[in-house]
Amino acid sequence: MGFNEVRKDYLLDRWVVIATERGRRPTDFANKEREKAKTGVCLMCPGNEHMTPPAVLVYLKHGNGIRKTEDKDDTRHKNWAVRVIPNLFPAFAPPKNKTSQRKTAKCSEMIPAVGHHEVLVESPNHDEHPADARLSQLEYVVDAYVDRLRELSARPYVKYVSIFRNHGLEAGASLSHAHSQIIATPSIPKTVEDELEASKRFWKQNKKCVFCEIIKKERGGPRLILENSKFVVFAPYASVNPMEFWIIPKKHEATLLDLSKSDVKALAETLKACLGGLKKLVNDPPYNYGFHLAIDKDASDYYHWHLEVYPKLAIWAGFEKSTGMYINTVTPEAAAEHLRKTISS
Amino acid sequence: MGFNEVRKDYLLDRWVVIATERGRRPTDFANKEREKAKTGVCLMCPGNEHMTPPAVLVYLKHGNGIRKTEDKDDTRHKNWAVRVIPNLFPAFAPPKNKTSQRKTAKCSEMIPAVGHHEVLVESPNHDEHPADARLSQLEYVVDAYVDRLRELSARPYVKYVSIFRNHGLEAGASLSHAHSQIIATPSIPKTVEDELEASKRFWKQNKKCVFCEIIKKERGGPRLILENSKFVVFAPYASVNPMEFWIIPKKHEATLLDLSKSDVKALAETLKACLGGLKKLVNDPPYNYGFHLAIDKDASDYYHWHLEVYPKLAIWAGFEKSTGMYINTVTPEAAAEHLRKTISS
Repeated sequence: MGFNEVRKDYLLDRWVVIATERGRRPTDFANKEREKAKTGVCLMCPGNEHMTPPAVLVYLKHGNGIRKTEDKDDTRHKNWAVRVIPNLFPAFAPPKNKTSQRKTAKCSEMIPAVGHHEVLVESPNHDEHPADARLSQLEYVVDAYVDRLRELSARPYVKYVSIFRNHGLEAGASLSHAHSQIIATPSIPKTVEDELEASKRFWKQNKKCVFCEIIKKERGGPRLILENSKFVVFAPYASVNPMEFWIIPKKHEATLLDLSKSDVKALAETLKACLGGLKKLVNDPPYNYGFHLAIDKDASDYYHWHLEVYPKLAIWAGFEKSTGMYINTVTPEAAAEHLRKTISS
Repeated sequence: MGFNEVRKDYLLDRWVVIATERGRRPTDFANKEREKAKTGVCLMCPGNEHMTPPAVLVYLKHGNGIRKTEDKDDTRHKNWAVRVIPNLFPAFAPPKNKTSQRKTAKCSEMIPAVGHHEVLVESPNHDEHPADARLSQLEYVVDAYVDRLRELSARPYVKYVSIFRNHGLEAGASLSHAHSQIIATPSIPKTVEDELEASKRFWKQNKKCVFCEIIKKERGGPRLILENSKFVVFAPYASVNPMEFWIIPKKHEATLLDLSKSDVKALAETLKACLGGLKKLVNDPPYNYGFHLAIDKDASDYYHWHLEVYPKLAIWAGFEKSTGMYINTVTPEAAAEHLRKTISS
């Protein structure tokens, strides 16, 4: 047995100890009993629309499809498919006037938390999480991501839009109804900025997109999990989390705004296959996922959107928190092998 | 009510939304029932020394004091006060020969995980955690931190020594016996490197230590928690965690190696007071702490060691993990006020 490896992320100056000697097999995580979120009246279930702020976007069922509305009095509609509402306790709030719109320049130590914080109710069905969702419903979810991204990223005080999902109480989902969140921020967050800078540097040096190169490398290798006509899914070389995987489009695009109808369908299928595989393999673990994308049009050459999925199977403790170096007890190669087999079986 | 604030760390490019509108009072965290670590045979309790690898350092009780030994056959001794043992599942392992000692240069994407990973058993008494420990015992713990730091940092393949403590299952302490951990790494971890660079830059520009300036600023302000002859304790301006606090020595020193006997005593007293206050205020919450220090002698002008304590009262979810931006629901000013009152009462 040789040494554990300390691996660097493709782009970020982020190092992870792949500590196989303390390793467990991926399936060893499966038996844990998970704490459940409190039950009671669900604010997100149909019939309780009046308990939330008015929606900013509603997809109404309409024949075999949906009709989009921004009707302020949306609580009249009970036949919705997807509903996006402002977060009752927003971390970021919209500016109240023109003055505060201008006050968003990044100063040395503080900026006002101007922006948006929304909750996307993914389905009228409480438990319709992506692993088990109808494909048509998951397509609506992706469509709604894109609609909100388009709307929010056009505002002058918005510099980034983070679209993410927390699944399970241990991953921070205090409410159990299937939902995602959208946060629009007044500055580009650190991790995204670091990725933008590194990919821009790579592009200047090589006239190539670093993510397209990563796809080429990972497609044929031991960390590949799934490939279809539109997407490649793999466990990243320096996975920070056990069973982590990334979903990346083959088509070079910096953001989600130009997804075609067939791209949306393929993303819904890919999400369902991968999250379904994870659920089956590790007993419906808590997880977080987040889209990484570029708002700035200048980034269209060098940035490449993708979705990072972080199963929550370990705890970041004193070492990780005080050093910014991580320990992962499952090799990405083993994670990929198990996920690949589970998904294809 | 104005906007929430997005605040920047003193040194790091790390931004935190202080989201008071979703805020809870610090004491709201107090009622949660905490999951306990499994009970059973404790590997760290006296009488079970044979179940662990041989110690690398033992403090034996000796009259009214202690006697230090590196006796390889330490399992004969039952009268120890502190025992440092190699971790059974080390993330980093010592090199086996001269060749691998040289192989530790940081390459582009991987380095072998050469180093050390040790467990410091803080007391023969299972539950003697710092909040409730005898002061004399806590002084031994600090002494042992210094002894191991001196020993490990002298090795040529060691570039950093992380001394940290996980308290409670939710903070990653899978064993409940009072213990700390020490990890020696073959590269300087990201967070420490960023702090070193930023403080060096500040020193070049101002010929002053940035941490000495932070102490000056925080001593008289609303985030001060405790001050005694040797230490200042405060909630940092851009606290990432609810109830986070830092303990920093008034004397400018880059590392722990020159602590005097009275410094050690004062640190033990300060630790006990602050962790005792936290325990009382928030019902013995899980927490992590980690020392930040410089190994390199060149840093002695510009770096200033300190201890960062992170209570685990919130979950980093999809937003934090995919953006590197944080949301903290307790203002550092409120955290400081509550901790100050609890400690002084």
